[in-house]
Amino acid sequence: MFVLIKICYGKIAFTFYFLFLSISSRAQNADSIVIKKLADEILTNGEAYENLRFLCKKIGPRLSGSPQAQKAVEATAKMLREAGADTVYLQPCMVPHWVRGKKEKGFITLENGKKITLNLCALGNSVGTGAKGVNASVIEVNSIAQLNALGKKLKNKIVFFNFPMNPAHINTFDGYSETAVSRGRGPAMAAKYGAIGVMVRSLAINPDNFPHTGSTVYNDSFPKIPAVAISTNDANFISKSLKNQSVRASFFTYCNMLPDVLSYNVIGELRGNELPQEIITVGGHLDSWDLAEGAQDDGAGIVQSIEVIRAIKANGIQPKRTIRAVMFMNEENGGRGSKKYLELAKVNKEQLVFALESDAGGFTPRAFRLDMTEGQMCKVEKWIDLFYNYGVYEMKPGSGGVDIGPLKELGTGLAGFSPDSQRYFDVHHAATDVFENVSRRELHLGAANMAAFIYLVDKYGL
Amino acid sequence: MFVLIKICYGKIAFTFYFLFLSISSRAQNADSIVIKKLADEILTNGEAYENLRFLCKKIGPRLSGSPQAQKAVEATAKMLREAGADTVYLQPCMVPHWVRGKKEKGFITLENGKKITLNLCALGNSVGTGAKGVNASVIEVNSIAQLNALGKKLKNKIVFFNFPMNPAHINTFDGYSETAVSRGRGPAMAAKYGAIGVMVRSLAINPDNFPHTGSTVYNDSFPKIPAVAISTNDANFISKSLKNQSVRASFFTYCNMLPDVLSYNVIGELRGNELPQEIITVGGHLDSWDLAEGAQDDGAGIVQSIEVIRAIKANGIQPKRTIRAVMFMNEENGGRGSKKYLELAKVNKEQLVFALESDAGGFTPRAFRLDMTEGQMCKVEKWIDLFYNYGVYEMKPGSGGVDIGPLKELGTGLAGFSPDSQRYFDVHHAATDVFENVSRRELHLGAANMAAFIYLVDKYGL
Repeated sequence: MFVLIKICYGKIAFTFYFLFLSISSRAQNADSIVIKKLADEILTNGEAYENLRFLCKKIGPRLSGSPQAQKAVEATAKMLREAGADTVYLQPCMVPHWVRGKKEKGFITLENGKKITLNLCALGNSVGTGAKGVNASVIEVNSIAQLNALGKKLKNKIVFFNFPMNPAHINTFDGYSETAVSRGRGPAMAAKYGAIGVMVRSLAINPDNFPHTGSTVYNDSFPKIPAVAISTNDANFISKSLKNQSVRASFFTYCNMLPDVLSYNVIGELRGNELPQEIITVGGHLDSWDLAEGAQDDGAGIVQSIEVIRAIKANGIQPKRTIRAVMFMNEENGGRGSKKYLELAKVNKEQLVFALESDAGGFTPRAFRLDMTEGQMCKVEKWIDLFYNYGVYEMKPGSGGVDIGPLKELGTGLAGFSPDSQRYFDVHHAATDVFENVSRRELHLGAANMAAFIYLVDKYGL
Repeated sequence: MFVLIKICYGKIAFTFYFLFLSISSRAQNADSIVIKKLADEILTNGEAYENLRFLCKKIGPRLSGSPQAQKAVEATAKMLREAGADTVYLQPCMVPHWVRGKKEKGFITLENGKKITLNLCALGNSVGTGAKGVNASVIEVNSIAQLNALGKKLKNKIVFFNFPMNPAHINTFDGYSETAVSRGRGPAMAAKYGAIGVMVRSLAINPDNFPHTGSTVYNDSFPKIPAVAISTNDANFISKSLKNQSVRASFFTYCNMLPDVLSYNVIGELRGNELPQEIITVGGHLDSWDLAEGAQDDGAGIVQSIEVIRAIKANGIQPKRTIRAVMFMNEENGGRGSKKYLELAKVNKEQLVFALESDAGGFTPRAFRLDMTEGQMCKVEKWIDLFYNYGVYEMKPGSGGVDIGPLKELGTGLAGFSPDSQRYFDVHHAATDVFENVSRRELHLGAANMAAFIYLVDKYGL
């Protein structure tokens, strides 16, 4: 049997494979048997896919504050009970209540008077234009430096943030990190210079006609100006047009931020029988954007987390520590569920030893990202050969996830499930994020790897 | 820089990572730069996806002998010229001409007289029932041993081969290998015992309503009896029904094997400037089943092979050896193109040093299968770190592919592109194998890894 040994020496890690027949190999062999049972159970009898179908097709979009978000709270509490959680409860938290209102519309006008309809949608949290719309000439910017250099020239204009995601990055999240500022802070930065509206190129790689929404964050020092995402095809067309003529744009959005409303994190636990005070969190976020079913983002993470509980229970594994599946509310436009989870952990002096998040889609597994101490990382990396046969071949430093990130304050070791990223930005925050674009086997294989990780942390600690 | 060193010692291979700063590391660094250029070109300007759209949407199903197969011959010859091949030519070969005819129909009848329509399709190469159909009581068999044990009891029956693919296999092809006998030789084996018809559970893992076709091979010693595939849902239902009652089935198929017709392999070459007589083959198969567009099977392999030529040419790389993209005809129901390629290689005394096939779909890359000498394998495995950043982390022994397999006779080193297999049997030989189920980035990333492999073999030989 080949076993991977990682020797940590200062900051340099050497990795060796050995034909290894020691006691630790026998321990790994026993673990590999349990992990195979977990995987077999999930791949054969897994309920994650049918749970996801319910969330997507019977409930639908689950934007914070919506009636569907509330239905999803009730549905996942029920799923957790059916999965075998011994305790299921809700954690109340107030969430923002942004509504899109009537379907947005918009077009550009070329110099010859020709009007071309745009595929657009309001950015999450943005203000609406109302029926009078916004109408102005368009200035394209390709970087924040260029925005700042243009400065006052942006006054009374519609700023068109055209930050294409670099397709050469193999991990598509790298391209997202480089360009997400255009959507997140772009509108606020343009407002600083007197712009009256913003169009953002959708954060997608492929040329298509779908606008991708997502949060924008205003700056209280400047006016809140209306902001929309446009499809990559539209962005390419406008950019090309601007090469040899002026372009005007008009758009009409009806979105609105209403007062906060009450919502919930949903929690299901398997209580540990040796160290119940040590809590292992596994979760995703229950809310989604409103344009589609939130299947990959992040229905997948939700049903995978429930499946971890189900598979452990179905295999008759009695955890030492308490395993807690958490459906975080409001990741998309506020992170209130995440804040509440941390706040209550502090109030209740909880010992949150480890947290694992799945919020990069239910695609075929490749890796786990680790955000923990070096000592913990060395320990976890030694487990890699136990995952290898199930598609995970890499444990690498990286962020655990948006919902569990704040737990660092408590010293919690964090990990993020990192599946293949090639298809993620085809669906992220767009109308294409539907159940049909999730593969049953990929979803279940991801859950199998998550269950294995939770099993190992439960057995050995961090 | 980490470099992987594989030390082959007899039949045992030890793998070490080293902080490696020697000349060979510098060579690898130079290679990694070229490979990045190839990948950047393909991920940024790749034409494989649009070529696939053409094959799928403008031409459609490309069963051997069909007018669409002929159109695909012409279209890919054009694509190869546009990709920059310096020589494009056709290799004539006679192919079987099986036609499905009118849409099949079938149903089962339960003891209470209730008729339930089946989702079925004739197996490729099978004989039709004609309008009178076949009608008999159904016997389920779950293994070849059971079939043989039943023996004469199968006389005048419809044999229902219910061989479910084991979902616990992570590589889904392992489940296929275990069960494919039911479709390939099942009908002939049932005919031996006097059965008058065969229904085969589709070789798919998930429960759904799509019948999956594929070749069956008759045995000339026994009657050719009509054979159909039924969906996994139908198979589950019939099996459940048979637990407590007898079931009769009727089906009507109109397929027919016509005389052989002329078709072609399509070949495009980049002639080598140092060792032009050494030929590197990269290919897939141009024919597909008739129920869908043959997008993953094997339009993907076709357009990836063309893309390899295009990317090498677009990067101004002058190959030492001759690189030849081959679109093999008739993999699905005869393998005549493959046989012709070997036959002509012998006639022309060609030196086919290496062949790479892509016929497992255009999914996200994971591995290459190697079928070559141990010495060659050791050489190739040393390149693994050059692929690692592009998703390929494994070089493992395995079959190169059905089309290139016969080249072993010439001592050709073989490799097969081995992408993630989770979604393959959702579409394989079924109506779901359409362009929409191919991811542009996954397809292109596969082509990038194939181009890297061809580049390395061209530079260093095997």
